[in-house]
Amino acid sequence: MKVAFLGLGIMGRPMAANLVKAGHEVSVWNRTHGKTVEGATSAATPAHAARNAEVVWMCVSDTAAVENVLFGESGVEQSLRPGMIVADSSTISPASTLEFAKRVRAKGADYVDSPVTGSKIGAEAGQLIFIAGGAEDTITRLQPLFSAMGKQVLHMGDTGKGQSAKIAANLMIAMIYEGFAEGLTLAQKLGVDPERLVGLVQASMIRSGVVDYKAPFVLKRDYSPNFPLRLMHKDIHLVLDAAQQLGLKLPGIGAVEHVYEESVRAGHADDDYAATLAVIEKWAGTE
Amino acid sequence: MKVAFLGLGIMGRPMAANLVKAGHEVSVWNRTHGKTVEGATSAATPAHAARNAEVVWMCVSDTAAVENVLFGESGVEQSLRPGMIVADSSTISPASTLEFAKRVRAKGADYVDSPVTGSKIGAEAGQLIFIAGGAEDTITRLQPLFSAMGKQVLHMGDTGKGQSAKIAANLMIAMIYEGFAEGLTLAQKLGVDPERLVGLVQASMIRSGVVDYKAPFVLKRDYSPNFPLRLMHKDIHLVLDAAQQLGLKLPGIGAVEHVYEESVRAGHADDDYAATLAVIEKWAGTE
Repeated sequence: MKVAFLGLGIMGRPMAANLVKAGHEVSVWNRTHGKTVEGATSAATPAHAARNAEVVWMCVSDTAAVENVLFGESGVEQSLRPGMIVADSSTISPASTLEFAKRVRAKGADYVDSPVTGSKIGAEAGQLIFIAGGAEDTITRLQPLFSAMGKQVLHMGDTGKGQSAKIAANLMIAMIYEGFAEGLTLAQKLGVDPERLVGLVQASMIRSGVVDYKAPFVLKRDYSPNFPLRLMHKDIHLVLDAAQQLGLKLPGIGAVEHVYEESVRAGHADDDYAATLAVIEKWAGTE
Repeated sequence: MKVAFLGLGIMGRPMAANLVKAGHEVSVWNRTHGKTVEGATSAATPAHAARNAEVVWMCVSDTAAVENVLFGESGVEQSLRPGMIVADSSTISPASTLEFAKRVRAKGADYVDSPVTGSKIGAEAGQLIFIAGGAEDTITRLQPLFSAMGKQVLHMGDTGKGQSAKIAANLMIAMIYEGFAEGLTLAQKLGVDPERLVGLVQASMIRSGVVDYKAPFVLKRDYSPNFPLRLMHKDIHLVLDAAQQLGLKLPGIGAVEHVYEESVRAGHADDDYAATLAVIEKWAGTE
């Protein structure tokens, strides 16, 4: 298929590369210049990239970036034609997704929200899970592209439900990791060997992919970014914004947001979100 | 072996029954009368139960109950002889565990803290995991009893380290479940089908034994107790008490404590801790 891929960040670049590898005709664009993908054409603007595309795939940093790529100066909107599909693998506001989809559909194109889970590792291996919202037949048309970049598509419902499920999932991930970080800090202060504590986690019902993946890095206090803290922080704000709009009280993730705020203040924005442990340990005086 | 088993609650009764089944000579005692275990002798007091025992095994509700069983009127202390072992599978304060062990050792007996994970189901099936603190050779002597009641013994370090690791583990479980409950509430309010959200959890790195076990009940809002909320609430207090003694700041579990407090106030103390969801849904106006 002819695909415009917009956004060549930590996730987007390997995703676009996997589309090229699968034989698709890919034009790429990135906000800052100089990022390219071998075998893909580089375009100067989103509108240029989208000009001859059947599908426009976005993977940018936040809601404002999606809005700008779609509807800003030289945005995708100028190149939209009936029958085109816009797919968004950024993690953004579910409410804004509904607005963006409406404006895209006004041009006769269709819209699918398809945020991903699997982090950098999953993007590189073509093993992402897509959490999709939109019409069944549109999602079916995108199947060759999903297959090139991921291992599974979970259809969560109509437009916006992909983003809704994604922010709920990231809420859960942030809470699992915060529990691990607080439990590890407490146990260490009480004199428990951290490797034995991880052994207990892995032998019990506490075990999850989150801790399986993070623990070896955490035990070395290696916070190299797989999923940068600033992005998890952004997703927590998406959760809290949605909760406020809906009048929900979510005390756990509300408290965890403060840990992220303090982590950003302490200079960990570009580290992995695992670095929230560094702040909890600083408070504990164990760093 | 000759074992005195003290505390025939939701966990203790099936544990004692599994000791009898494995051929051990068991005398049992429970604070409230009328609870018995087939094939075991019922004793009128902890001291009576312990009189001819090689091992005294406790599984009672909290720190005060352990203190009372050991050192109260007609307590175990009166029957302690050199070479005996006291094992505690209650979940109690690590700091108090150190005091209790010291008083037990003053009589020439030894002490092992051995709280468990696996809930009621694991106790009935003889599939508990023991999280043990104490001397290696004492733990080895207890192996026939551990094998009768559980599938694994994780030795976390010396006295108190079993309790320390256990309260850290329960902190993690409470945070995993709170994340699930808040994420589910948010996603449902945003229109996502709850079964599809659970499908996403199970397909992704969020999956854990905690949610695997709870989800089928939660989807039916069946809060029959497997691990009663009041006990998880007690364990969260053990965490916060230890954190305060150590000068730790644990914001996640601190916020979650308020959800448990409100859940108790709303009448869910004897329901499963999964019923914290009912309070989050009440706040959300979705019950």
